[in-house]
Amino acid sequence: MATEGEGTWSPYDVVGHLIHGERTDWIPRARQILAGQTGPFESFDRMAQFTESQGKSLGELLETFADLRRENVATLAGMNLTKADLERKGLHPELGEVTLGQLLATWVVHDLDHVAQIARTMAKAYGEATGPWTVYLTILRDRT
Amino acid sequence: MATEGEGTWSPYDVVGHLIHGERTDWIPRARQILAGQTGPFESFDRMAQFTESQGKSLGELLETFADLRRENVATLAGMNLTKADLERKGLHPELGEVTLGQLLATWVVHDLDHVAQIARTMAKAYGEATGPWTVYLTILRDRT
Repeated sequence: MATEGEGTWSPYDVVGHLIHGERTDWIPRARQILAGQTGPFESFDRMAQFTESQGKSLGELLETFADLRRENVATLAGMNLTKADLERKGLHPELGEVTLGQLLATWVVHDLDHVAQIARTMAKAYGEATGPWTVYLTILRDRT
Repeated sequence: MATEGEGTWSPYDVVGHLIHGERTDWIPRARQILAGQTGPFESFDRMAQFTESQGKSLGELLETFADLRRENVATLAGMNLTKADLERKGLHPELGEVTLGQLLATWVVHDLDHVAQIARTMAKAYGEATGPWTVYLTILRDRT
């Protein structure tokens, strides 16, 4: 599947990465903060998808992601977070002190970062086919 | 609604722009090529949304876009294009000679360009809220 070049990820890789985040990052870290645990979060494995996605189709991965996201959004809603909760702190293994509010904002922006990445990667796969229009299509030159 | 700064577009502006494209760009130009018209396409109005969207909610615009896109995809399918058709030529008012295949590829990449733009604009609206995580979220620094 197409990537943006050496060392970059295909949309398939990205979906596997998002799945790993649903399982090990956002909600587990939110729970850790709310439980008042003072030790650092476990490091997030940015390469997990390269083993975990093996043998699975893109369709299967998308379904898994949709299921996990649905559950996690329900879990988040069930936390009934207050403004004070959003100020509660956790310890990131690299970044140091972070708040629950920052964690939740990052969950959103991280999604959007990968949505844009998927759009760029798909666009570049059609880049040459646009012929003279290439000059108007700035996305074809983003992050290259 | 949030933009990426002076002279850039909000997601609301983008949806209006996509609507104008469905009405005046992709399918009308494809028809012109298939009809063998040799004159240049009419110039596309990149500012049309600033008057045409006035008084409409984002929800209304999204519904209009979905309806137009559905109709246009059905129209495209109904054209039963052959490989030879994709090589047929039209005249772009600025770019000169272009093929029908290039027009259709541009329709796709143009969508993706604006999908990425919407993701960037939404991400930047939450940028500060991510706190220390900002350093990992490359989208916050794209096209700035």
